[in-house]
Amino acid sequence: MPSVAVIGLGNLGRVLASAYLGHGHRTIVWNRSPAKADDLVTRGAIRAATAAEAIAAADLVIVCVLDYDKARQILTPAAGALRGRTLINVTSGTPEPARELAAWATEQGAEYLNGAVYAVPQTIGTQDAFVLYSGSSAVFETYREQLDLLGAATFVGTDPGLASLYDISLLSGMYGMFAGFFQSVAVADSAQIKAADITSLLVPWLNAAAAALPGFAAEIDSGDYATETSNLDINAVGLANMLTATKAQGIGVELLAPLQTLFESQIAQGHGAQSLARTVESLRAGR
Amino acid sequence: MPSVAVIGLGNLGRVLASAYLGHGHRTIVWNRSPAKADDLVTRGAIRAATAAEAIAAADLVIVCVLDYDKARQILTPAAGALRGRTLINVTSGTPEPARELAAWATEQGAEYLNGAVYAVPQTIGTQDAFVLYSGSSAVFETYREQLDLLGAATFVGTDPGLASLYDISLLSGMYGMFAGFFQSVAVADSAQIKAADITSLLVPWLNAAAAALPGFAAEIDSGDYATETSNLDINAVGLANMLTATKAQGIGVELLAPLQTLFESQIAQGHGAQSLARTVESLRAGR
Repeated sequence: MPSVAVIGLGNLGRVLASAYLGHGHRTIVWNRSPAKADDLVTRGAIRAATAAEAIAAADLVIVCVLDYDKARQILTPAAGALRGRTLINVTSGTPEPARELAAWATEQGAEYLNGAVYAVPQTIGTQDAFVLYSGSSAVFETYREQLDLLGAATFVGTDPGLASLYDISLLSGMYGMFAGFFQSVAVADSAQIKAADITSLLVPWLNAAAAALPGFAAEIDSGDYATETSNLDINAVGLANMLTATKAQGIGVELLAPLQTLFESQIAQGHGAQSLARTVESLRAGR
Repeated sequence: MPSVAVIGLGNLGRVLASAYLGHGHRTIVWNRSPAKADDLVTRGAIRAATAAEAIAAADLVIVCVLDYDKARQILTPAAGALRGRTLINVTSGTPEPARELAAWATEQGAEYLNGAVYAVPQTIGTQDAFVLYSGSSAVFETYREQLDLLGAATFVGTDPGLASLYDISLLSGMYGMFAGFFQSVAVADSAQIKAADITSLLVPWLNAAAAALPGFAAEIDSGDYATETSNLDINAVGLANMLTATKAQGIGVELLAPLQTLFESQIAQGHGAQSLARTVESLRAGR
């Protein structure tokens, strides 16, 4: 059973370290503010005095800090300890720094895997969390069992930046949903409807409406946007009316107005009778 | 068992008429293009020659056309048939025309209820569809059983415009989610990831992330935005990095950039350490 070092004990890092402890792994922890480790040490974790000491003591090193700058600041003085170690970085960020850290870690003689964790505070450490990995497939295979403890593990490719691209893609979806939520609550508020009341309807409605997304995806992949149901013309009329009524309630429309602009752009190009899914063509690279 | 007229046989109207037929109601149908009724007539529906004839023949009249202009065009010449009838309008639209139609129908001696149907093509006529009603509570109580055939029925208030306000609120949430989906697919596409592949991860991720919304709603209702987890500062850094990386992939960021602006506006007002949910304050009426 490999020993595991967790470097960075924020909300996510503490849950990860706790999961390894709970499954009987020898678990070494380090955090810049040592007090964050206190609870874990009480439960049997070993507190390292430095990041280098934590790395030297473990087979598998998991870095879980806010951004890549912090990761580099912590790892650079510990470079000498990295040879022969396996480094898994679950710092969220963009593809380029992930590739740079992978190249640097390889130069130091470490194996490198990049991970992106999908969890909201309510789902960290539960079966609803999942983690996408990219980089060394050998590391992924060797430590598969340990990775599954962090959430259902999926390997998406050998480019170390790929997990970050998935990350940006999926978080874009989440932020879009959050933007819709804020808009929904603001409209409800203007009619004295409580946020909790509209949210109790909105959550099941969003789950139901998400059933349309795989159909949209199939249209996008095929490039065949013929539709009998939800075309751009109908949606553009509906959304324009909604935005007008929203303004009449005194509510800002800046979050959804850009979507209306994309609908209208597709319609101006003659695609009004085609599927709503065609909107994505207005965002595509090289459009 | 009351007889039911369905006026307007688009995608939704045909499903509604079919539900009444299937439950043994005497069902009268009318559509401007009569051929849309053919299948229903084969299954036992009665085809009316005019909207007035359909109204005169039924206890309960359900109007299901594209917008309020069309509803008024159809109902005005049939005004004489409305006295003593119950009119339920499930045309989607904004609160003001709903209130005007309610006032007009009342003048004609009809009882009026306004409904907003929540269904995507995949869920129409299933248990995942639901309908919110506002207007006459007497109509809602009398015809509760018939209304439940259209999807789970909820009465939201006596203002006939209220169902439309809920409609705008919930559809705003849906369009936000769709905007996030388009953004997600465009980013994935820039890395040669198929829409179907990213969507198979995105749908469960959105369902999981929606678990955060009731917590946000509680913060909004209480006005207490203190948080230990997902504050505006962290989200603004994360989203800014995502938008930079998205642009580097050649993808437009117009759908999510306005959310970043709202984050920054709240931070500029000194609320960076408070919950992400505070973003809604930048949209509120009279902010």
